Formats: sequence, structure tokens, C-alpha cells
Amino acid sequence: MQGRSPSDVIKPEVRRLSAYTLKHVKADVKLDQNENPYELPQDLKEEVARRVLARPWGRYPEFVPHSTTSALSKFTGWTEDGILIGNGSNELIMAGLSVVLGTGRKAVIPQPTFTLYKLLSSVFQANTVPVPVNASDFTFNVEMLEAEAKDADVTVICSPNNPTGTLLPADALERILKTTCGLVFLDEAYHEFSGQTALTLLPANPNLIVLRTFSKAMSMAGLRFGYLMAHPEIAREIHKAKLPYNVNVFTLAAAELVLERRNVMRDAIQTLISERQRVVAEVRKRPGVEAFDSCANFFLIRTAKVARELFDALYAQGVLVRDVSSYPMLDRVLRVSVGNPQENDRFLSALDKALEIS
Amino acid sequence: MQGRSPSDVIKPEVRRLSAYTLKHVKADVKLDQNENPYELPQDLKEEVARRVLARPWGRYPEFVPHSTTSALSKFTGWTEDGILIGNGSNELIMAGLSVVLGTGRKAVIPQPTFTLYKLLSSVFQANTVPVPVNASDFTFNVEMLEAEAKDADVTVICSPNNPTGTLLPADALERILKTTCGLVFLDEAYHEFSGQTALTLLPANPNLIVLRTFSKAMSMAGLRFGYLMAHPEIAREIHKAKLPYNVNVFTLAAAELVLERRNVMRDAIQTLISERQRVVAEVRKRPGVEAFDSCANFFLIRTAKVARELFDALYAQGVLVRDVSSYPMLDRVLRVSVGNPQENDRFLSALDKALEIS
Repeated sequence: MQGRSPSDVIKPEVRRLSAYTLKHVKADVKLDQNENPYELPQDLKEEVARRVLARPWGRYPEFVPHSTTSALSKFTGWTEDGILIGNGSNELIMAGLSVVLGTGRKAVIPQPTFTLYKLLSSVFQANTVPVPVNASDFTFNVEMLEAEAKDADVTVICSPNNPTGTLLPADALERILKTTCGLVFLDEAYHEFSGQTALTLLPANPNLIVLRTFSKAMSMAGLRFGYLMAHPEIAREIHKAKLPYNVNVFTLAAAELVLERRNVMRDAIQTLISERQRVVAEVRKRPGVEAFDSCANFFLIRTAKVARELFDALYAQGVLVRDVSSYPMLDRVLRVSVGNPQENDRFLSALDKALEIS
Repeated sequence: MQGRSPSDVIKPEVRRLSAYTLKHVKADVKLDQNENPYELPQDLKEEVARRVLARPWGRYPEFVPHSTTSALSKFTGWTEDGILIGNGSNELIMAGLSVVLGTGRKAVIPQPTFTLYKLLSSVFQANTVPVPVNASDFTFNVEMLEAEAKDADVTVICSPNNPTGTLLPADALERILKTTCGLVFLDEAYHEFSGQTALTLLPANPNLIVLRTFSKAMSMAGLRFGYLMAHPEIAREIHKAKLPYNVNVFTLAAAELVLERRNVMRDAIQTLISERQRVVAEVRKRPGVEAFDSCANFFLIRTAKVARELFDALYAQGVLVRDVSSYPMLDRVLRVSVGNPQENDRFLSALDKALEIS
């Protein structure tokens, strides 16, 4: 290699990026990744293991895992040829953005939101336009989103949004879909906790792409499974950039069983929703602590303390939350996942102690 | 959405692509995907299932699965901070190409080769320069590769190459590494069957990226596991485009166990190599059939027949091979994976019958 250093070949937009990282630390009460504290039933897990042991591991998964996509079609009511499955929804985000974004393309992305969208848009050298959420309550800035989306190739909306937990109102989404000249990526990773979905808007809006995951409500974060719904003409194009054999035989077996027993996590989801309401209300009783409304399985809190200090004081008591204070507009803010009642009580008493310290 | 159709937003380079597809058909003797007919030992598989059942599925895999990357570091002798793991090597190909390729970038890709490279280079809007293999014996056109690689941002070399089974000589690789101003993606998916690796060139060549998979020799095609080795400064950049939590807990457990028992597939690999030699020699005894030298677990055959006719005649007898005749230069050619001795005998007698028919 002559004349230049190998990393000079890397695109400048990539070199400027910091990687998405998360330090893995252990904790008694793990409320940092919006995971589901309730596991899938043991008998379901054992049946998955049995099915996987009964098939060869040396053979590729089916090229088109029809049994999974047809089960998803029944589950959602959306046409099977408009459904793609991924190794987590992350993979479908990457494939979806890759077929649209490149030099000179415009991506509109609310800030703060799930970091992968901006990171990948930068890798693809798109012109990324941030739309800050409203400072007072972290709701979407609907007017600015609508205005910027008009000439955008991609508009990203996570609803409920991560890390804010806020929803985009359905009428705002409809207006954006009607007025943009591009595609709308509507990420519903947390939709089961919100009671709202954009699925009903899909038939009338061929520029809408709905993304979902089994990592949250479905308690399969360790297994990686997500899916995308779009009009078949769009799904076909995204499929070209989707890697073949991307979901392994273990995750396919698990997803199929979860879809067969479609209500398997219903009670857990209900408990998490009511626990969210309880904990947010409890936090609000504490003087000097704000807790923000959320439609997801997590919520934001803000105090007068430096976020890192509060984080450390909680962690010293075995409670791990997420310090999101480096995100735009989230100074002094922590994100707290909703756990089971015991975990939430541990968080509340740790919070009390942490606030006394100051 | 006003004025244009949603698929107009898709990049023209993507719309022009046909998707990578493979029709899934059943067969008694499956020699179409270069899979390993020998499975991992049953006790290893059961131990993987036990480990997976013992951990929560609702929790994400570790952000950096250190136990896997350190085991790979011991296995290969390469520094751990220069190793990335993926959901199959496909995912690392995508991440690796994405941080280098875009409009105005040049990718040199031999033809024919593993189709994903050209497909993804097109998605990323790079200028893709094909370098046809030599027509006589399907070896690499080393002179043309060296010349085109000089000003390339990416040069792709699958060695052994798929579907030809040919190796790039080590001295040619060294010359390319010295004279190119870009990165070389050296895909060693089949290296265990060749006795050759570019790993020894890695320390002295910071522009070399070596890709490997557990889908072939390691008999984990259904589980999806691959890894990439590069200098840490390059691995760090590729890591930015690699999706978080990309390898699930099941595949991590399996990969770790396979690495613990590092010789677990050694006998199977030896058998496949000697079977390849036997079957190629047997095929050559048939008049009117050419069989090409291969360093992988598959080989090419050519007859006077239209490839599809021969394919169908074999399939009618329960033997599924790959029709590669639509690839550049491979008119009348089929690719045949090496199976176990019984499967190979089935192939040989099916071939005899198929040739009699004409």
C-alpha cells in the first residue's frame, strides 16, 4: 500500500463518527436497556430447543422462511409479500436506509432518538437534518418535522420515541405521509406499550415503512428478531439489500412459537404498563424530581443533580439505569426502564437514598 | 406523497439490481449450497441448548462478546481488538464495504465470484470493475487484478473462489497488497479445505481484511457466524457500521463451544478433502465431462449439454446441485458440493444416467 495510511480509505463521514457503544456492567436491578423482565414461558423455550436439536445445524435456513412470514402476515393482517424479517429490526433499518440514502440524499431525524438512524445515515453519506423535540415536554416538534419532511428522501419517526417515550399523533403522521416526497420509516419498537400503531395507515400510504421488534414486549432481545412491513413494491427493493439467511434457525423457531401462542406475553405487557404508571406517579411525589409521560416501557426523570452523580448513586445501590444526559436537550436526565414490581420498588428506594445524599 | 411513486425514491442502482435469490427445493442428496454434510457432535449441540436455556432470553447479548472474541484471538493468533464477529460473514462484508464505498469509489471484483460483493457495491453506488477469471481453467486473471487494484478503494478476492474453487497465489496477493492504494477484502470462507490462509500476511499489511465463516467447515450454516480480522485501526472503523447485538446468544454459545473443542470438525474436513479428490477423479473418467480443480468443498463440471438439462436430469434422480451457467464464463457449467461418500456415489451414478439419456 503506497502513499497513504489504510484508514485514509475510510469515508470521512465514518471517520468522524464515534461508534455506538455501551459498557456492559453487572447490576442486581438492570433497568438500562428497556428489556422485558418477564421471560417467555419455560415450556415454550424448551420446545424451541427441542425443535432446533431436531434439525441439522450444518444446513442453511430457508432462503425465504415462509412459515415465519406467513405467521407474521396472520398476526398483523398485512400481506406476506410486504413483510421482511431481520436479525433484529436493526438489520432492516440498515437495509432500508441503504437502498435510499447516499450522497445528496436527505434524511430527517428527530433529536434525540434511537442513535442508529443518524449513525447509519452518516455512513451512507446522506445529508442528515436533525429536528429537535420540544424542550418543555420532549414531544415531537410536529411543525418542523412536517416542513423538513417535504423534500426529504427519508423521514425517521420512532413512536413511541426512544429515549423520550413520546408518541407522534396519528394526524401528524398522516399529514407527513401525504406531503413528503420520500419514505417514512416508522419505528414501532415499543408500540405494544402504547396501544397505538401506524399499521392501519399502511394500506393507503405506499411510502410508509413500519418496523417492529421482538426484543422488547416479546422478550426476545437475546435472540434478535425484527420485521418490516411495507407495500410489496418497496419491500422488494429493500429485500435486495437484506442479507440472505439473516435469521438463524433458533430464532426462526422461537419467533414461530411466539406467533403460534400470540398472547403469551399479554399479561406481562399489561403489568409493565401499569407499573410504568405507578412508578411515574411515585417518582412525581418526590420533591425536586420530574418524571416525564411515556408510552413505552421506560421513562425519563430529571433532577437538579448532575446526571452522572445520580446515576452513580443509584448504581452504588445495585440499580442500573441509563445516563442519557449527553443526548441533545437531555441535560440532567436519566432513562429508567420499567422492571417488575420488586425491581421498581428497589429503584424507588434507591432514588430516595440518592436524593437524600445531596 | 406527492408527484412521484414511492419506488422512485429508491436509488436507480438498486432498482436495476435483481435480488439474490435461491428457490428452496427438497432433495435426497443436497449438493447445492456447499454445506457440510457432517454435523457437529450431538453432545456439543445438547450442551449449547443447555447453556442457552440457562440464561435469560429477554436480555440482550453482551455489547462486546469478549468471551467469543478472546477465544477467536487464541484460535487464530490475531489480536483481539482486530477481530469483529458477525451474523455470518455476510454481515461483516456489508459493514466493511459500507465504510469505504459510495459514489465515486472504485471496487474491483473478479467475475464470477460470490454475488453479494457486487450486489452490495452497487447498493452503495460504487464504480464496480469486474475482472473476469481466465477462460481456460477459471484461475484468477492476476495481471488484470493487479493493474485494476492499483487505484481501487476496495479489491475483493475470495480465495478459494466461489464458484470456481480456485486460489489466488500468495505472491500475487502480496503484490496486490503492496501496490493498491485501497483495502483488500480477502474472503476465506473455504480456507479449511485449501490448506492456505492469508492470515500470515496480516501483520505486515495494514490494508488487508480477512473474512471467515463457520458456515462451511464448521457446519454452522443454520446458526450464522462469521468473523473478520484486520488491523485494529481498520476494525475500529468497520465496527462503527456493524449493528449492535448482531450475534444472538444461541450462536455465541455454539461458537464458543466449537472454539473450545477446536478440532471437533477435523476428521470431517479431511474426509471432504479426500472425497473431493476422489469424485473429481471419478468424474474425469466419464467421457465428455470436464471437472475443474478445486481447493474448496465443491467443484465445477462442464459437459456438452445445456446446463439446465443436466441439472434437471440429476434432480429427477434426487440429486440437487447448483446451476451456475448464468454466471459470466460458466456456460454449460454446474457446481457440485462435496457430500459424504454415499451422497457422492449417488451423484456419480446419477451423472452416469443423466449422460446416457442424451
